[in-house]
Amino acid sequence: MVIEQLELAFHPGSVAVVGASSNPLSPGYRFALHLVNYGYRGRIYPVTLNCSQVLGLKAYPSLRDIPGSVDYVICCLPAAKVLDLLAESSEKGVKFIHLFTGRFGETGQEDAARLEMEVLRRARALGIRLIGPNCMGIYYPEEGMAFAYDLPTEPGKVGMISQSGGAATEFIHYASLRGIRFSKVISYGNALDLNEADFLEYLCHDPETEIIAGYVEGVRDGSRFLKVLRQAALVKPVIILKAGRGNAGARAAASHTAALAGSFKMWETAIGQAGAIQARTLEDMMDLVVSFYFLPPILGTGVGIAGGGGGKSVLSADAWEEAGFTVSSLPPEIAERIQNALPEMWWRWIGNPVDVSIFPEEAIIANLGGNILRMMAQNPHFDLLIGNISVGGPVSETELAAGVRRQVSDIIDIHKEAKPLAVVLNTGALGLEESDKLRWKCLAEEKAKLLAAGIAVYSTADQAAGAIIRLVSYHQRREAISRSLSAPEPRSSSRS
Amino acid sequence: MVIEQLELAFHPGSVAVVGASSNPLSPGYRFALHLVNYGYRGRIYPVTLNCSQVLGLKAYPSLRDIPGSVDYVICCLPAAKVLDLLAESSEKGVKFIHLFTGRFGETGQEDAARLEMEVLRRARALGIRLIGPNCMGIYYPEEGMAFAYDLPTEPGKVGMISQSGGAATEFIHYASLRGIRFSKVISYGNALDLNEADFLEYLCHDPETEIIAGYVEGVRDGSRFLKVLRQAALVKPVIILKAGRGNAGARAAASHTAALAGSFKMWETAIGQAGAIQARTLEDMMDLVVSFYFLPPILGTGVGIAGGGGGKSVLSADAWEEAGFTVSSLPPEIAERIQNALPEMWWRWIGNPVDVSIFPEEAIIANLGGNILRMMAQNPHFDLLIGNISVGGPVSETELAAGVRRQVSDIIDIHKEAKPLAVVLNTGALGLEESDKLRWKCLAEEKAKLLAAGIAVYSTADQAAGAIIRLVSYHQRREAISRSLSAPEPRSSSRS
Repeated sequence: MVIEQLELAFHPGSVAVVGASSNPLSPGYRFALHLVNYGYRGRIYPVTLNCSQVLGLKAYPSLRDIPGSVDYVICCLPAAKVLDLLAESSEKGVKFIHLFTGRFGETGQEDAARLEMEVLRRARALGIRLIGPNCMGIYYPEEGMAFAYDLPTEPGKVGMISQSGGAATEFIHYASLRGIRFSKVISYGNALDLNEADFLEYLCHDPETEIIAGYVEGVRDGSRFLKVLRQAALVKPVIILKAGRGNAGARAAASHTAALAGSFKMWETAIGQAGAIQARTLEDMMDLVVSFYFLPPILGTGVGIAGGGGGKSVLSADAWEEAGFTVSSLPPEIAERIQNALPEMWWRWIGNPVDVSIFPEEAIIANLGGNILRMMAQNPHFDLLIGNISVGGPVSETELAAGVRRQVSDIIDIHKEAKPLAVVLNTGALGLEESDKLRWKCLAEEKAKLLAAGIAVYSTADQAAGAIIRLVSYHQRREAISRSLSAPEPRSSSRS
Repeated sequence: MVIEQLELAFHPGSVAVVGASSNPLSPGYRFALHLVNYGYRGRIYPVTLNCSQVLGLKAYPSLRDIPGSVDYVICCLPAAKVLDLLAESSEKGVKFIHLFTGRFGETGQEDAARLEMEVLRRARALGIRLIGPNCMGIYYPEEGMAFAYDLPTEPGKVGMISQSGGAATEFIHYASLRGIRFSKVISYGNALDLNEADFLEYLCHDPETEIIAGYVEGVRDGSRFLKVLRQAALVKPVIILKAGRGNAGARAAASHTAALAGSFKMWETAIGQAGAIQARTLEDMMDLVVSFYFLPPILGTGVGIAGGGGGKSVLSADAWEEAGFTVSSLPPEIAERIQNALPEMWWRWIGNPVDVSIFPEEAIIANLGGNILRMMAQNPHFDLLIGNISVGGPVSETELAAGVRRQVSDIIDIHKEAKPLAVVLNTGALGLEESDKLRWKCLAEEKAKLLAAGIAVYSTADQAAGAIIRLVSYHQRREAISRSLSAPEPRSSSRS
C-alpha cells in the first residue's frame, strides 16, 4: 500500500507549493522554480497571500482557491501553520504533503516536539501521508521534480534515501562529476510519518532503480527497517552510510533530524547480516556506487594491472593485495607471447602490475602496454583489469598528454572485451591557475572520455580496491545464496 | 663525511651530462634542459660524440675534453658503458656521479647484477660516490637542479627521499596543487652506494628541510637506517611510506629497484619505535605533509568545527571523533554569548559541529557562523579549529559562491588568531566541462586563496582527521621526551 501511495507522490498530476514566494532566496520560490526548470509537466500551483504571480504562474491565496485537484503539496510554511494546512489539505482532497518545514523535534524544544506529534496524529486521522518534516523531499529527474539547483536532468539508475538534504545534494553534485545519474532521491528528514523503511521498500520494488544508496542517521522502526533491508539487498545492491556513530555524531544527529542514532556496533552487524554494503563516508559511498554503476558482477579476485612506472606498480600491488585481491605473476601464455617479441631480459622482467617504464623503445612503439592489457582481457586468469593512468615520470606535458591519450583510447577499446575493467586516474584537486595547464587539462579531458565510455574511474588505487572488493563480496554472497536455493533439498543425515 | 660529500652534490660548480643528446625525447637532452630551464647557475657540460651542441651549449666528446673541472656527473649512458665512465671520471677528478642508467640488478639478470656489483667495487676503489643507479637523482629548486618538467621553481621546506623517481615526480606534482614546496628531493633507485640512510641523515641536518618525507621499498642497511631514522625523527617530523608490503608488492619492488622489501610487520614496529610517522599511500603521505607544513604543533585533541549543514555536521563529528579527537558541546562562555543574541531555541540548539543551516535569518546577516568560529579561536577549550566549507544545500551557484567567499574570508581572518586551523574543502574531480561552472570554479578559486594564506586544506574530514591526529601524536611524543629530558633525575625509591 505504501508503494502505491509513493507512486502518487512520484507521479503527481499537479503540485501546490504552499508558502510560495517571489523572493528568489526563499524556499517557496526555489521549489516552484525547480518544478519549472526541471520540466515538470503537471500543473504547478503557487499558494501565497503575498502576490498574485510567482515565476509567471498564477498564485492562489489558499489551497481551496485552486480550480483543479491537487495531488502533492510542498509545504514551506512555518511550523505553527502546519496543522491548519492539514485541515485545508483534507478539504481539498490532498493525499500527500512534503513538509519542507522544519524546527520541530530536532530543535530539542518540548513544545516543538509536541506540535510534531500532533501533526502526525492529525495527518493519520485525515489519511494524509507525509514526507519529512525538515527535509528537501524528492529529486526525480524523469518527472522534473528536484530540490536543488544544478542537479543532472538526465535520469540514471541510483535510487537514494537520505535523512539529510545537504548530504543528498552534496552526494548528487559530486557523484555526477563521476558519471553517476539518479532514478529517484528522497530526502526525508525527521521521518515522522513515512520513514526510511517505506522509502527503501519503494526503491526495492522500483524498476527504475538498480542500485540503492542510503544516508541514515537513525531509524524509526528498527525491526521493520532490517526486514526491508534484507529483502532489498537480495534484489539489488544496497549501500548504507550510517551517520551519527559516536557520541558527538549522535548528538549532532539528534539536533539535525531528531534521530536516535542507536549503537553503531548493532548497526554494523545488522547491515552486514542483511547483506547490505556499509559505507564509511560520503566519498566511500561514492566509490561504492561508481563500482556497482559501471562494473558487471565479479566473482573472483584475480586482478591484472597495467600502466604507470615502478613506484606506481609497487604501490598498486600493495593496495590491491591488501584489499583482498590476488595480484599474481603473468600467466605463462602471456609471458610466452612477450618472449616471442622481446629478448630474454624483458620477458623475465615484466610482471603484474605491468611497469611500462621499463619497456625498450621497440616495445613502446609496438604498444606493448596496451597489448598486455588486451592479452589479460582474453585470459581466464584475470577477473578484473585495472588501467593505471601514468601521471608521473620524466616526460614533458606534451608527451604526457600523448601517452595518456593513447592509453585511454586503448582502455576504451579493451573495455569492449567484456572483462570487468576499471581505471585509476587522479585528476588532482585543482586551483584555477593549474587547470589551464595541459598536464591537468588533458587528465580532465581523458577522464571525461572514460566516463562517456561507461568506465569506472577512481582517484586512487586504495579507493578503487577498497570499493571493488566489497562489490566482489556482494556478488559472491548472492551467488552462494542462489546456489543454495537451487540445490536439491539435502537428505536427512545418517545420524537422525 | 657523507654529509659533506652530499653538500658537493647539491652545490656543484659544474655539471656534466654524459650521454647528452639533441633528441628532445632522450634523458640526456632532458637533464641538460632542466639545468638550463630551472636556472642552474654553474657550468653545464653536455658530453656526447653525436653532436657539437646541445641546447646551444658546447658539447664535448668526452669528460677529459672539458676545459674546467667537473663536480657532478649525470650519467645517461647504457649500463655497459658505466665502468669506462668511472675510469674517465676518476682521471678528471670527478667525485660524484648520478647514475640515471638502469637495467642493472632490477632486471633479475645475473650478469646485470654482477655488473652492478663491479660498478660499486670500482667506484669505491676510485673514491667516487654514486646516486642510483636506476634513478632520477636530484630536484633542488634553490640550486636550479631538477629531474622532471613543470616542478615548482620556488623552494619550500619539505625534503624527500624516494626510491622511485615516478613516485617522487607524482608526489611533487600533486602536492604542489596543495601548496607544498620542496627543499631537496632525492630519487635514489637501487641505492647501490649512497643509500636511504645517507640521504636521510643529510636531510636531518639540512637547515633548508623542516619536514622529511620518504618513499622506501627496501633498505640496504637496516640497522643504520633505523638509527638515522630515530635521530631524524627527534629533530623534525619524518613521514615514511613503506612500499612493497605484500607478496605482489615485494615482487614488484624487486623488479623495480632490486629492493628486498622485508617483513612489513617489522617495518611498522620499527617506524613507530623510531618516532617516525607512517603513511599508507602517496595521498596519505600528502595529507600528512600538508598537516606538518601548515599547522603549528598541537598537543590537545579538542576540536571545534563550523560550517556546512546538518548532514555534514554529523559526518564531521563521526570522522573527527573516530580519528581520536574530542568533539564536545559548545562551552558555556560561547553558549552564553549566543544566548544574548538569539532566542532560547537557538542557544540550546546550536552545537559543535556548528550546523549553520539552522540559523535564523538575523543570525546569518550578523554572520554568526564566522563569529562562533572566532569565539572558538579565543577559547582555551579548543586545540584545533576546522572550517567545513558548505558545498551542498539548496542555494543557487551564485548564492553558494557568495557564501563560500564570505566563509573563506572569515577563515583567513580567524586564522591570524594563532589557533591551529584547517579547512575541509572538496573541489571535486572535475572534467573539463564542469570546471567552467561557477559552482566548481568558485571552490577552486577560494581554495587558492586559502592556500595563499598558508592554510591546510583537505578534501574530506576523514583525511584531515586521520592526518592531523598523527601530527598531534607526534608532538605529544616529542613533548613527553623533552619533558623527561628536562626533568630532574628521579630519586631512588624508598624501597631500595
